Amino acid sequence: MSNKYVYTFGGGKGEGDTSMKNLLGGKGANLAEMSGLGIPVPAGMTVTTEVCTHYYDNNHNYPGELEKQVEAGVHHIERVMGAKFGDPKNPLLLSVRSGARVSMPGMMDTVLNLGLTSQTLDGLVEKTGNKRFVYDCYRRFIQMYSGVVMGAESEHFEKIIDEMKTEKGVTLDTDLTVDDLKTLCDLFKARVKEDLGVDFPDNVNDQLWGGISAVFKSWNTERAVEYRRIHGYADNWGTAVNIQSMVFGNMGNDCATGVAFTRDPSTGENRFYGEYLVNAQGEDVVAGIRTPQPINIVGKKDDDEKSLEEIMPDLYNELEGIYKKLEDHYKDMQDIEFTIQQDKLWMLQTRNGKRTAQAAVAIAVDMVEEGLIDKDTAVMRVEPEQLDQLLHPMIDPNVKREAIAKGLPASPGAAVGKVYFTAEEAHAASKGGEKVVLVRLETSPDDIKGMVVAEGILTARGGMTSHAAVVARGMGTCCVAGCQVLQVDSDAKIASIGDITINEGDPLTLDGSTGEVMLGELPTTRPELTGQFGQFMEWVDAVRTIKVRANADTPHDSEVARKFGAEGIGLCRTEHMFFEGERIDAVREMILADDLAGRKKALTKILPMQKSDFKGIFRVMNGHPVTVRLLDPPLHEFIPHTDAEINELAQKMDVPAEKLKAKAEELHEFNPMLGHRGCRLGVTYPEIYAMQTQAIMEAACELVRDEHLIVIPEIEIPLVGHLNELRQMRAVCEKIANEVMERTEQKIKYFIGTMIELPRAAVTADEIAKAADFFSFGTNDLTQTTFGFSRDDAGKFINEYVEKKILPADPFVTIDQNGVGKLMKIAVELGRKTKKNLEIGICGEHGGEAKSVEFCHNIGLNYVSCSPYRVPIARLAAAQAAMADEAKQ
Amino acid sequence: MSNKYVYTFGGGKGEGDTSMKNLLGGKGANLAEMSGLGIPVPAGMTVTTEVCTHYYDNNHNYPGELEKQVEAGVHHIERVMGAKFGDPKNPLLLSVRSGARVSMPGMMDTVLNLGLTSQTLDGLVEKTGNKRFVYDCYRRFIQMYSGVVMGAESEHFEKIIDEMKTEKGVTLDTDLTVDDLKTLCDLFKARVKEDLGVDFPDNVNDQLWGGISAVFKSWNTERAVEYRRIHGYADNWGTAVNIQSMVFGNMGNDCATGVAFTRDPSTGENRFYGEYLVNAQGEDVVAGIRTPQPINIVGKKDDDEKSLEEIMPDLYNELEGIYKKLEDHYKDMQDIEFTIQQDKLWMLQTRNGKRTAQAAVAIAVDMVEEGLIDKDTAVMRVEPEQLDQLLHPMIDPNVKREAIAKGLPASPGAAVGKVYFTAEEAHAASKGGEKVVLVRLETSPDDIKGMVVAEGILTARGGMTSHAAVVARGMGTCCVAGCQVLQVDSDAKIASIGDITINEGDPLTLDGSTGEVMLGELPTTRPELTGQFGQFMEWVDAVRTIKVRANADTPHDSEVARKFGAEGIGLCRTEHMFFEGERIDAVREMILADDLAGRKKALTKILPMQKSDFKGIFRVMNGHPVTVRLLDPPLHEFIPHTDAEINELAQKMDVPAEKLKAKAEELHEFNPMLGHRGCRLGVTYPEIYAMQTQAIMEAACELVRDEHLIVIPEIEIPLVGHLNELRQMRAVCEKIANEVMERTEQKIKYFIGTMIELPRAAVTADEIAKAADFFSFGTNDLTQTTFGFSRDDAGKFINEYVEKKILPADPFVTIDQNGVGKLMKIAVELGRKTKKNLEIGICGEHGGEAKSVEFCHNIGLNYVSCSPYRVPIARLAAAQAAMADEAKQ
Repeated sequence: MSNKYVYTFGGGKGEGDTSMKNLLGGKGANLAEMSGLGIPVPAGMTVTTEVCTHYYDNNHNYPGELEKQVEAGVHHIERVMGAKFGDPKNPLLLSVRSGARVSMPGMMDTVLNLGLTSQTLDGLVEKTGNKRFVYDCYRRFIQMYSGVVMGAESEHFEKIIDEMKTEKGVTLDTDLTVDDLKTLCDLFKARVKEDLGVDFPDNVNDQLWGGISAVFKSWNTERAVEYRRIHGYADNWGTAVNIQSMVFGNMGNDCATGVAFTRDPSTGENRFYGEYLVNAQGEDVVAGIRTPQPINIVGKKDDDEKSLEEIMPDLYNELEGIYKKLEDHYKDMQDIEFTIQQDKLWMLQTRNGKRTAQAAVAIAVDMVEEGLIDKDTAVMRVEPEQLDQLLHPMIDPNVKREAIAKGLPASPGAAVGKVYFTAEEAHAASKGGEKVVLVRLETSPDDIKGMVVAEGILTARGGMTSHAAVVARGMGTCCVAGCQVLQVDSDAKIASIGDITINEGDPLTLDGSTGEVMLGELPTTRPELTGQFGQFMEWVDAVRTIKVRANADTPHDSEVARKFGAEGIGLCRTEHMFFEGERIDAVREMILADDLAGRKKALTKILPMQKSDFKGIFRVMNGHPVTVRLLDPPLHEFIPHTDAEINELAQKMDVPAEKLKAKAEELHEFNPMLGHRGCRLGVTYPEIYAMQTQAIMEAACELVRDEHLIVIPEIEIPLVGHLNELRQMRAVCEKIANEVMERTEQKIKYFIGTMIELPRAAVTADEIAKAADFFSFGTNDLTQTTFGFSRDDAGKFINEYVEKKILPADPFVTIDQNGVGKLMKIAVELGRKTKKNLEIGICGEHGGEAKSVEFCHNIGLNYVSCSPYRVPIARLAAAQAAMADEAKQ
Repeated sequence: MSNKYVYTFGGGKGEGDTSMKNLLGGKGANLAEMSGLGIPVPAGMTVTTEVCTHYYDNNHNYPGELEKQVEAGVHHIERVMGAKFGDPKNPLLLSVRSGARVSMPGMMDTVLNLGLTSQTLDGLVEKTGNKRFVYDCYRRFIQMYSGVVMGAESEHFEKIIDEMKTEKGVTLDTDLTVDDLKTLCDLFKARVKEDLGVDFPDNVNDQLWGGISAVFKSWNTERAVEYRRIHGYADNWGTAVNIQSMVFGNMGNDCATGVAFTRDPSTGENRFYGEYLVNAQGEDVVAGIRTPQPINIVGKKDDDEKSLEEIMPDLYNELEGIYKKLEDHYKDMQDIEFTIQQDKLWMLQTRNGKRTAQAAVAIAVDMVEEGLIDKDTAVMRVEPEQLDQLLHPMIDPNVKREAIAKGLPASPGAAVGKVYFTAEEAHAASKGGEKVVLVRLETSPDDIKGMVVAEGILTARGGMTSHAAVVARGMGTCCVAGCQVLQVDSDAKIASIGDITINEGDPLTLDGSTGEVMLGELPTTRPELTGQFGQFMEWVDAVRTIKVRANADTPHDSEVARKFGAEGIGLCRTEHMFFEGERIDAVREMILADDLAGRKKALTKILPMQKSDFKGIFRVMNGHPVTVRLLDPPLHEFIPHTDAEINELAQKMDVPAEKLKAKAEELHEFNPMLGHRGCRLGVTYPEIYAMQTQAIMEAACELVRDEHLIVIPEIEIPLVGHLNELRQMRAVCEKIANEVMERTEQKIKYFIGTMIELPRAAVTADEIAKAADFFSFGTNDLTQTTFGFSRDDAGKFINEYVEKKILPADPFVTIDQNGVGKLMKIAVELGRKTKKNLEIGICGEHGGEAKSVEFCHNIGLNYVSCSPYRVPIARLAAAQAAMADEAKQ
């Protein structure tokens, strides 16, 4: 620990810069940096984090030298600000704020307006000519200081104010007179004395040291400790204390306050953009009681508006110079706060400004062109998740919306259409040319037909990983799931939300990005994927080191995936192919068959259909690998369960309903997720996997032979837990593959691998790798089994888990790195111990989530695979991960 | 590789002993050892396993010296046996057998009667005076040799025999005349020539080398290679070849053959015990066509029987001397085979004899007393699983049984009683004094009342770990589960098995150890836990290093557990306590409550009942730890699901059926095993865990205060996957525990820990250990989630998995050491990294299975916990594990 405990800033100098965040905290370092740039920052000083550590290491005592250094710091502030702390004529007021190396919003204490005492009040009145302002400041100061520093109950003060207002017959604080405020101050002080047995400090130095101690103490409150524990911040980092001169934008008409962005945060356009108010405090600008005015002439929407550029042209010019300096210095769009106190401009804060996706891309590309940043930096300037906004239609942001309900934002984008309550009806209406919103209690594979044609899907039940949500995201269709206030009666073709009734055919608008549901048809916009976007993604791909594939089950999805830049298909689910049209009949015939011969007969009917599906996909993916997962879901998913449905099907299939019912009962499972599915089906019915392999290989060989395409099929065995499962299934597939290649006289390179989606597969990956050409992490299932959470049921308590801070996030959304991720790491290590160059990817929902993509990069996966609509997000996340990784080395 | 390829035995000498199994194979080494003891063994030689390795390493060629050494070996045999290989007057016949270092039953080839040629046939006829015998031998030899060595199809020969019998109008082989047999030999040889294009070898040396090569070749047949792969045997071990003189017990009335045990294999009594037949082959004794006679006078059951002791007293005396010598040498009860050929006794085999549990214990204890073995050796002499026989009643082994069906042997023992089809009726009948067998399609927690009173339980559905099986094993009640041919209609009070109808009240007998179901009431016996058993278990406990606890939920079960030697309770499930009598009403009231206050009110009713349960258990376990698991199952298990049941309950509870139905629907889960259960309930409803903790702690504190008992409560939080879950639940429990201790003015040592039953818990055990005083592996659930197998559903395919050799065993029965076990090892290592002396146990079903107990010992667990009835098994398994472990060091 050095002997320098206090670092000053202001007056065109700063004793530190942003590289000193650990010592000065984030806020202190930034203030010093701004000062160092010659920006007019209210003068102040930072007491270092080392003092905090010393304070705790030494039984709440400060280093001996501190007092003197703080005193010198006060003199520095006085000098710069031309006022004196505690001076009866020209008093200086100070703020005392915490500031750790990372932001811990709301966790620690702040005291404002230090320096008001019976001696300084009058001087301030004289200086400002504003008695009301001064006594309101004093009233607030007593309230805040006695609460934060002295530990008084703040409710007591609120009660006193209420009593006063009742007595005076007024309702607003602002209706109280100056004398009332004076009385309040006296009552407050009396109450402090009564409650705490001590006088409210009337000495500015007592006030200051009380404030400093309060901030240091607040480092160790229960909630701050808990916050650090959750975020993994070390207790011994400590907080700095920032002591800074107060400035006021509300002392009169020569005062103002405002916020501004150095570029347009919604479009990214390179123009200075902001709002301000004369004679106001910062919070007034945001509060919306008075209408803020545009900062410059170019920002005016009508002539009545008065811009700062017109009213205070010199100060506006100064501000312009400053914003350019700041952007030039920070090399990013800045969000700045300023206050003008009696014709003097003070900069209170600058930080990188938040922006829309469109703006983020535009600013990044512009700045590269302006030579402000390089391409790599540009790549880091856009949040991957933000891109989602660019890839889906959205509700026109300029239109006022009134949500009647809010569900989970299950699949982003906007949807506008007429409500239908069944897949059949939705399908029919869509054929008739209507735009359709499908509203269901929850969806099942039977609903696919309706989901495919719908603009959007709304369900009452189910979480972020419910059937509706997963399928919708896969298709890039807007979906609001788990809208719990929604009641649906699909038989009666009616739904209700509270008192509102929704009938079939009613227009409805969904916002899948927020989960909101609106009556009527709101206008939508689709931001263009402009040239800047294409430019940006080129830079992204240049940086990225892992591949990005898409999960796609149809030629159409494959095309979308290619358009979004997918470099192959990481998961082609074959079961979706089983549901369409007559296929489901053949599938049901197979399930009901009494013997192998019967099953083979039915499979023969499915074969040409699957083969044609694969051909369609392989054509689109010419030259890129396609991972096809063999049949995964339990067979009972393909047959109906209610008596009515069974009877209907029995009639259609011309089999006794009893037989169907018996089969349904036989196939019933208590925990289907842990049941007879995945390769377990393949073990019991190898003929199914044989048929699928035949379809894949015939499609591939014929395309190579007849159309001279390059087809790279990867046959994937799902739900493998034991090497022997994979060995046996591999043997089944290899036999067929060889037969097909011989018959078609083709020799193509194909691969047989497995999902790693069970904990047992992860911990025995060295064994399993012996029979696998590739691994692909099925993190949905792996998360289910690692946690013992069913995706279909866990919605009931996962939100509670996140709220109660048991889990930092929904593990079905972002990979649980400590648990599930640990198993993934084990699997990668073990798998590559057996086969050094084993290709390993991920195809769970996590493959398109930025943090998970970063994790996948870090553990050395070869690719991630996600919904087509998330491919650009994954590409960007992968690029950023690569850069972060490089920075570490 | 040495230059000695052939080791001889016989004639009172052996060139090897049992320590040379790797070189001579198990059989060869044993024959050499017996010879070395001076026992009359038919002379022979062993060609070493090194020759096999050489053969495969050198393109199927033998070492140069081998031929000469085999020739010398043949001379040795000729010398000892007084006959000559290939001699027309006095021919020697040889057998050629495989013999690897471990037994690979049926995997490799054998040829008998080598040495029969057109030159030697007459000599043998003359020597034996038995033409029929000689030609039958020759016929068999041609058949076997041409099949095994030459690769002929054996069906062809069967067909020739059949044709001959048809032609002669006879049905039995023995009805064929000597001439017929002669003709058969000619036909066989002609067929060989026709099929294979070569003559059947008529030269004894060709025959011998053909046999040797056939054995070496059979080391590498597909099935042998597969067998080694499954058992983990190395391919380069190789097999030895044993060439030995044939001896015959069927040459006339001066010949005999028999098998004997050196002690009674059923009771363990120290007396020579066996059977024999005059003029017979070994297989005749076992085949049951002729009735074998007792070997000695003491074994005679009636006077008509003729013992060897009476008929051939000298040979019997010789045999007696030999058996004593063998037992003395091998220091274990021997199972011996002998043949008398023309008044000369030959010992063919000796091995440790199989025995019943009762005999195993008796022999082990006797042998210690006789000074033959020490106590440690005695402990190794009983198979832990065998003990099960001693702990349950069994069907009188002397009674003939006729099974009408066979299900899974789900819980051992025998049960005899009248059939009832519902828990209610079973309960009522039992109250009326009847012995009851409960027959159900499958059982659920609702059936507990009937299961408790039943002598045995029979279900049509469910596997070894179904509800019925698990509960029955826990109670030590006989259970046959998953009896698939059983049809049950409990409404009609009728069941059927094929054509057989079973009505309510019909007598039925179950054998839970074999899975058999018998009509009527069969007599049962309960082997006494004699003094010898107690003595034996004392030795067991002296060796054992890990503790054995029991899983018990009631005072009664706890008493049984203590009686069987449990050193505490490792799992006391509290949910079973929720089902009895009025409790279930209060539980349902809690579930239906609309708010916290309503739930608390209902919980207040359950509190005193739980408390009294705990008091009962703590009293029995005075001084021993009791691990109480807080509520685990999902709440829907406590409410009915069918409309009829719901309506009935609604009436009883006086709530609208609609409300009940809505609650049932709300609680419905797609995968309850992965749903809202375990500590997830505790997180949502902390008041439940608080009530349970209060019941535990009040019971404990009051017993300490009022009855001066020692109570060691271990409060166990189930289904923890994340440290934070345990932290929050721990806080809930600690708060209540402190309150209770303060209120009762007691300060007792209690512990709070967790089940490790999720993969995530295992891989983050270092984290979880921070908040845990102990771990207990819930290997049932851990197996479910690690494999992704639902216990309730996996029955459908696990058997198939075992049959198809995907899994070596049902992982719900014996711990899957590579997968689940690996996670356990990780958890132990991580847990003890955080807390060096962390107490870790296991309470899954595996805790009472011998191999799993050994594994638990090896990975350093402190205890295993199992059903009370399996405690002795676990004690013995733990002792044997400790000894094996010591032997390794």
